[in-house]
Amino acid sequence: MADDDVLPCSVVGDHQMRRREILTSGLGLAATAVAKPAIAQSMPDLRWRLTSSFPPSLDVIYGAAEAFTKAVAEASDNKFQIQLLPPGEAAEALQAADAVTNGSVEMCQTASYYYVAKDPTFALATGVPFGPNSRMQNAWMYAGGIDLMNEFYSQYNIYALPAGNTGCQMGGWFRKEIKYPNELNGLKMRIGGFAGRVMQKLGVVPCQFSGAEIYSALEKGMLDAAAWVSPHDDEKLGLGKVSPYYFFPAWWSGGAMLHNFINLEKWHSLTPAYQALLRIASDQTNVWMQSKYDAENPLALKRLVNAGVRLKPFPPLVLDACLKASFELYNQLSATNPEFKKVWDAILTFRNDQYLWWQLAEYSYDTYLIQTRTRS
Amino acid sequence: MADDDVLPCSVVGDHQMRRREILTSGLGLAATAVAKPAIAQSMPDLRWRLTSSFPPSLDVIYGAAEAFTKAVAEASDNKFQIQLLPPGEAAEALQAADAVTNGSVEMCQTASYYYVAKDPTFALATGVPFGPNSRMQNAWMYAGGIDLMNEFYSQYNIYALPAGNTGCQMGGWFRKEIKYPNELNGLKMRIGGFAGRVMQKLGVVPCQFSGAEIYSALEKGMLDAAAWVSPHDDEKLGLGKVSPYYFFPAWWSGGAMLHNFINLEKWHSLTPAYQALLRIASDQTNVWMQSKYDAENPLALKRLVNAGVRLKPFPPLVLDACLKASFELYNQLSATNPEFKKVWDAILTFRNDQYLWWQLAEYSYDTYLIQTRTRS
Repeated sequence: MADDDVLPCSVVGDHQMRRREILTSGLGLAATAVAKPAIAQSMPDLRWRLTSSFPPSLDVIYGAAEAFTKAVAEASDNKFQIQLLPPGEAAEALQAADAVTNGSVEMCQTASYYYVAKDPTFALATGVPFGPNSRMQNAWMYAGGIDLMNEFYSQYNIYALPAGNTGCQMGGWFRKEIKYPNELNGLKMRIGGFAGRVMQKLGVVPCQFSGAEIYSALEKGMLDAAAWVSPHDDEKLGLGKVSPYYFFPAWWSGGAMLHNFINLEKWHSLTPAYQALLRIASDQTNVWMQSKYDAENPLALKRLVNAGVRLKPFPPLVLDACLKASFELYNQLSATNPEFKKVWDAILTFRNDQYLWWQLAEYSYDTYLIQTRTRS
Repeated sequence: MADDDVLPCSVVGDHQMRRREILTSGLGLAATAVAKPAIAQSMPDLRWRLTSSFPPSLDVIYGAAEAFTKAVAEASDNKFQIQLLPPGEAAEALQAADAVTNGSVEMCQTASYYYVAKDPTFALATGVPFGPNSRMQNAWMYAGGIDLMNEFYSQYNIYALPAGNTGCQMGGWFRKEIKYPNELNGLKMRIGGFAGRVMQKLGVVPCQFSGAEIYSALEKGMLDAAAWVSPHDDEKLGLGKVSPYYFFPAWWSGGAMLHNFINLEKWHSLTPAYQALLRIASDQTNVWMQSKYDAENPLALKRLVNAGVRLKPFPPLVLDACLKASFELYNQLSATNPEFKKVWDAILTFRNDQYLWWQLAEYSYDTYLIQTRTRS
């Protein structure tokens, strides 16, 4: 089962900014435009279905979709009702995007990177190795990234809106400590998608197990390591008992951005008021999910450490090998896939500028606070 | 003039989470509740006014308020119209909260820390020295911080919603390099509010000048240093020509959170649908403003560096002296102001847990990316 597949990372873009620049640059042309339809047409009674790629046990992610559907209902005075469905009811977890493409549901909550088998460009919206961190991902998405991605998604009949992030995840659970890159060779690791392809270059054997199967697989030696999410979600699986080393960071993405995928014809069939509502509610979901993960992860981390979990940073030599392997893959894909190249080049340029700035105020502030946290 | 006073820092909280927990924990009781009023009552034609504390020249902040009012209009099919007013039309910049308290406007966009003269507790919603960073601020606010603040604000007839952040700012422009804490003694610096009170403990003479006056004051020696915002806003003032040292970080806050303040009776007079709409549109504004600053700041930074500005980190000894002075002030205020103590204790506990977790995945990811940024 892959319905609770681990999330990797993420990337975000600017339809929002452009939209707002248009909205704020003149005399409210958009507002004038939406005033034309009669009220009954502008906010009609509407029933949609949203299938999630995530089980309710991933309570922050699934909870964000619940909050999204409630917000849309509330703000439309219950005229726009979206029914949330867990995986398996309208579509299997990893077929959520297909269900949107073929219109069997109007929308889904998913991780774009789940669909890398169709095209690796899908991964770029969620997050890829050594890409932007969560806040930079938002900056990129709202500054144009989502427009680039929507050009790509249109061939799948999909219109996407950013709708959440896990933040940078942990690097996973290991039965033995990893000190050198060559110790990755032959390692059986639960890791999927784009990250798995990079790991293969280092000799890792990517394996697929559902969340419920990981514990047993580690215990029996069918797995040597497993990436899941972060302390809040990982704690529930109890992996510390069978794999004591908890490595960080998940270098395979700076965050894992989730999206609402909407059937393109259904999106265009919406009134301007309902399009606006889905957009602002998705943006709210985006900030809310990250905030909820940020609030919960420290509490789970403290419990894990108290239970004896051993925290380990990936050594610089290991990270260097992963960086090299990642860029080999980027270069290979860019050479053969113009759409991938177009989006990845945009992300890489943006990321480099972001970290040029990030290292000043944000990073030096964080550095000093980490050093002095316990002093005050 | 203080209408373009520099913003300090920020803190955020959880009415959102509680609201969502309620919404998602049962059978949609809230949705049932909002269904009762007739449609005409639930989304009535409504005209409000929103006065901003910020001039349109602070284009990201003012632009966020423009986007907010447009989003509310769009999503309500133009039934809920909020007129945005710059400082001076309905209220002066630093009287925006008073205008909300007395009901002469329904709401305002402001920085809570502007009102520290009423009570230092106001500062805690925007950001204070060595407080949480921008993402942690969101986490704290949506996990309960905004509820704590709204208990406090209620005595001013105000209901607040988080509505933006600048992120961690730069530490300001200095005519001479600062290497030791004693060099702060006697320094005439444009810095206000809570940060100014900490600076006074180190011998700094806080001075007030408007943005338009800073250049001339530095040139004439009436100022030795000036804090403004970050590269995107600072570049417009051209301060590098008269004060070549651009220090970082603004240790006086991890970010500067802006809020929408709403008159409490006006808030309660809203239908549930309109309350939901203001809430989700404020949350959207929150993520949008941070993203826009993040997208713009690197571009301005590159131009500033190319123009010869000298970037300097505050030395550890200086930061240590500022940390000590800040906590002296916290302890003084906590001893005499129970409301301040209650909120500050909550923030400090939350901040410490946040950095315990932040130092693992997020920080080590950022560290490696900063080190290798130019390698790929």
